[in-house]
Amino acid sequence: MYSQSIKKLISLFSKLPTVGPRTAARFVFYLVKLSQEEIDELADSIKNIKRDIKICSSCFKTFDASEKSNLCPICSNNGRNKELLCVVEKEPDLITIENTKTYKGLYFILGGTVNLKKDNEIRIEELKKKIENSNFKEIIIATNPTTEGEATALLIERTLAPYNITMTRLGRGLPVGGELEYADSETLESAFKGRK
Amino acid sequence: MYSQSIKKLISLFSKLPTVGPRTAARFVFYLVKLSQEEIDELADSIKNIKRDIKICSSCFKTFDASEKSNLCPICSNNGRNKELLCVVEKEPDLITIENTKTYKGLYFILGGTVNLKKDNEIRIEELKKKIENSNFKEIIIATNPTTEGEATALLIERTLAPYNITMTRLGRGLPVGGELEYADSETLESAFKGRK
Repeated sequence: MYSQSIKKLISLFSKLPTVGPRTAARFVFYLVKLSQEEIDELADSIKNIKRDIKICSSCFKTFDASEKSNLCPICSNNGRNKELLCVVEKEPDLITIENTKTYKGLYFILGGTVNLKKDNEIRIEELKKKIENSNFKEIIIATNPTTEGEATALLIERTLAPYNITMTRLGRGLPVGGELEYADSETLESAFKGRK
Repeated sequence: MYSQSIKKLISLFSKLPTVGPRTAARFVFYLVKLSQEEIDELADSIKNIKRDIKICSSCFKTFDASEKSNLCPICSNNGRNKELLCVVEKEPDLITIENTKTYKGLYFILGGTVNLKKDNEIRIEELKKKIENSNFKEIIIATNPTTEGEATALLIERTLAPYNITMTRLGRGLPVGGELEYADSETLESAFKGRK
């Protein structure tokens, strides 16, 4: 019942993560109400996204394509601790850690988690290569505390065991500002185990 | 910490309904993984969406711009009952009703609900004009059973009262397939009032 072009855009939007056909339809009718200038701004930003960014050859973070280096601003910053590596699932996790301003080491973005359903596309080989070519004293495995994140952490631990580098995981416990009453039992168990 | 172009696209995606900055970032990194052809397909569909559609001058539904008529396929269909008008908030509501294949009258899309916060942009004047130029025997006010939808229905009832046309609302009650145990009290109250 929708026109062809609306149907097509709904199906394209439905491919975005977390978006179903109903939300996709809301996106389309939101766009229809915008001016052509606003629509063009969005469409051009999408079209050029790959042209405007480079992927760091060392940590796989995205950065401005206008920069001359093949390394992102973090990897090319001499002030960072080159003996510390934090392995994260995806770039937004890196950004969240950077925003705390407490971590001064380097990063490595896996590009996902171990997933039994799909082909395993995470950068395990690239991670091994990076470790062979660096001098890390500690590797912090900062995957998410989810089933997939845990499985990924295990895979990394097993893969990197031969290198004899200290490997750590982020502490578990009650989120600061969270209330005990609302904590799930696994978090509470971790909080007990990790008590100081 | 994100590059300029990624920051910009995150902020543009964040303007879409139901999308916050975290979801917007997920959209961006989903796009970065696609091929340029897939990205172009999405960008071009967005860019052309207003060019590819027309808005029906009678009910305000969108339809293919390639059609010669100024009326959408529903309004120009002689098989529809021209004495029955169903007023909906938005096009997806119309599509949901059409999909039931039980309603054979015409539609009118308000384009939203009465909203005290924003300027009132719904098509009340256009609705009055449509009613003055038609011969409706019944107007079904099919706004959503939400606070905004109820307020909008009241406004329509009051605005159209002078025309002396029968106005009805959609029946309230338990959703078919739903369980009484999980029904909220207002729905249950409506179900009792609407018992047959």
